[in-house]
Amino acid sequence: MTDMAGYVAKHFRWRVEDGVAVITLDRPERKNPLTFDSYAELRDAFRALAYADDIKAVVFGSNGGNFCSGGDVHDIIGPLLDMDMKGLLRFTRMTGDLIKAMVHCGKPIIAAVDGVCVGAGAIIAMASDIRLATPEAKTAFLFTRVGLAGCDMGACAILPRIIGQGRASELLYTGRSMSAEEGERWGFYNRIVEPASLDAEALALAKRLADGPNFGHMMTKTMLNQEWSMSIEQAIEAEAQAQAICMQTLDFKRAYDAFVAHQKPVFQGD
Amino acid sequence: MTDMAGYVAKHFRWRVEDGVAVITLDRPERKNPLTFDSYAELRDAFRALAYADDIKAVVFGSNGGNFCSGGDVHDIIGPLLDMDMKGLLRFTRMTGDLIKAMVHCGKPIIAAVDGVCVGAGAIIAMASDIRLATPEAKTAFLFTRVGLAGCDMGACAILPRIIGQGRASELLYTGRSMSAEEGERWGFYNRIVEPASLDAEALALAKRLADGPNFGHMMTKTMLNQEWSMSIEQAIEAEAQAQAICMQTLDFKRAYDAFVAHQKPVFQGD
Amino acid sequence: MTDMAGYVAKHFRWRVEDGVAVITLDRPERKNPLTFDSYAELRDAFRALAYADDIKAVVFGSNGGNFCSGGDVHDIIGPLLDMDMKGLLRFTRMTGDLIKAMVHCGKPIIAAVDGVCVGAGAIIAMASDIRLATPEAKTAFLFTRVGLAGCDMGACAILPRIIGQGRASELLYTGRSMSAEEGERWGFYNRIVEPASLDAEALALAKRLADGPNFGHMMTKTMLNQEWSMSIEQAIEAEAQAQAICMQTLDFKRAYDAFVAHQKPVFQGD
Repeated sequence: MTDMAGYVAKHFRWRVEDGVAVITLDRPERKNPLTFDSYAELRDAFRALAYADDIKAVVFGSNGGNFCSGGDVHDIIGPLLDMDMKGLLRFTRMTGDLIKAMVHCGKPIIAAVDGVCVGAGAIIAMASDIRLATPEAKTAFLFTRVGLAGCDMGACAILPRIIGQGRASELLYTGRSMSAEEGERWGFYNRIVEPASLDAEALALAKRLADGPNFGHMMTKTMLNQEWSMSIEQAIEAEAQAQAICMQTLDFKRAYDAFVAHQKPVFQGD
Repeated sequence: MTDMAGYVAKHFRWRVEDGVAVITLDRPERKNPLTFDSYAELRDAFRALAYADDIKAVVFGSNGGNFCSGGDVHDIIGPLLDMDMKGLLRFTRMTGDLIKAMVHCGKPIIAAVDGVCVGAGAIIAMASDIRLATPEAKTAFLFTRVGLAGCDMGACAILPRIIGQGRASELLYTGRSMSAEEGERWGFYNRIVEPASLDAEALALAKRLADGPNFGHMMTKTMLNQEWSMSIEQAIEAEAQAQAICMQTLDFKRAYDAFVAHQKPVFQGD
Repeated sequence: MTDMAGYVAKHFRWRVEDGVAVITLDRPERKNPLTFDSYAELRDAFRALAYADDIKAVVFGSNGGNFCSGGDVHDIIGPLLDMDMKGLLRFTRMTGDLIKAMVHCGKPIIAAVDGVCVGAGAIIAMASDIRLATPEAKTAFLFTRVGLAGCDMGACAILPRIIGQGRASELLYTGRSMSAEEGERWGFYNRIVEPASLDAEALALAKRLADGPNFGHMMTKTMLNQEWSMSIEQAIEAEAQAQAICMQTLDFKRAYDAFVAHQKPVFQGD
């Protein structure tokens, strides 16, 4: 697949506008829980995005005033109780594969969070690149409240890198809700916006990123995730190589030509 | 040892309340300095905690208005000046072993910091999982002020992950005191509480964590420390395995059953 | 080279005051862009600093109200467009080598940032140990705005460790300017000072660090950079060794003797 403008999703909403894919979950009456089906289909969609040249950025938005209520208690937690370890590991790896697919999709993902954002929903927000929230956003990594550990889909590695080890520890041990104000102050949310303008602001930011340079954005995303466990010397060498590659794109020349001509560059993504 | 309710400590105070071990140093007239003996006994106690089923959480508290004044100048620094490298390394490894034992004890540790919290005291607070402080807390990684380097018991690795590399650098180079307000704003302290309620608030939080799910908390702690030098893909796979293990605990089923019955789950730790 | 008091730089300003080297770029009429020549000479100077016993700390300052406008569009970006991959990689590695040289120079570096601090200028500030800024400081990792990726000279590894992954992502994708107020709130800038006192405050802090203990500061810097990709156990062992080495310095004894005599220690760096 190299084009996703016509992609059809069964278990979530998908639309494309000016090169931006807008994804929302589609069960607003239950605050948008995830199911086995929507997990798998989201994983497949983000995997396909890595090859979709017509999509430049992604918004993962809210629906009906809520982002996502996490794994459905009846559709997911109930069946898990009857599984053996082989089945359990198949499930936890599938959820982890969604996060890996988001990390490797090559496009910046903007989470637009209103209302409930808990469990796997909080993880999806966490695994996005940039996060906007309304003052009503309630974000909880509530795994301990369902009898599990805070280590879910990479949370013990990713969350500390966003908000620091101390704040992440408190959220992951207690499962308590992080307010929007805390989220902004701690660096989880990049900006607080009013509910009425959440979709428009997220889309505007996504469109701005979609304007490019998209090869550069892909490389920024790659390296932001690639360098976590590198030494500082390894990271500097890795970036010397990555940036040298980017210097061979036409967008680099377009920016220079525009600068010399006192114009705004128009990037093409190659 | 699998039960520490009856544990007797010689060089610090130890008591157990509702599954929470409360530790304080016991030389309040000198702001609770550490000695060779208390270092070693603390290390041994935290090592034993890993096997103590009756202890679910730990509070490391203050005594007489102060947390800890660090290594005693007369009892520790003086003797160190007469040691050869073999002796020095034996000492620095013993102090590091205390931190490793805290990291591996399997129970969340809440530091309750009032007044002086400096040197090794600041390190003990740093190596705890959650930190409360009073407005009077004065936290200083003052190793450079005694002629040494800021790299003590893991500070150059751990502190940047809590408050960021820039703020950690300033504190470790200058040895200056971090105020309670800075500590909260930077993510070192999770909450500021009044001195009169410090003990009660720390104990209440510890009891809430002690209510479980304790197998989950142990796994949360394990993974929060285990994933520091993993790649993002390694971390996600590690958590898929860890969480699948937790899904086989009875506490996971207890939470589901309680949810279905519209009740609050009562966790048992298995 | 073991003495840099008499060092002469062609492409930047260099002076030494009380053991502190003060570096500024020297094209204030163009907001201090970097050129191939100044990149190379800065790299060589920081490499030499590792062996210069007479320099104890470095201030990288502003000039004419600005810190640095990054790689010169005409002198650098233009020529890069005509290079093949061998030439491009030679350039990106040279810029990375400047950051590596700063990291390995063994002395704390204080960036004193006024006005424009963008592109490679923002990287130089980022790679310093402590950062002061005026309210007028405008800091932008603007690589995407010239058609490139945000991964430049280690930014995707270093910036997230200073301000967190979420804020770093936004700055690196959008290339937008970070205000001084944001910079302080996010932990990029350690302190905001008035423009009129920027130089004096940076120099005062550098002199305070230059007063020592300088062997300790060198080891603090070494370990702050050495431990990024270590596990927590590796870091604690590494610090046990590093601190044991520092305990054999005379400065450790000087601090103890001064304490016992109720005096302020005078460190000598050995």
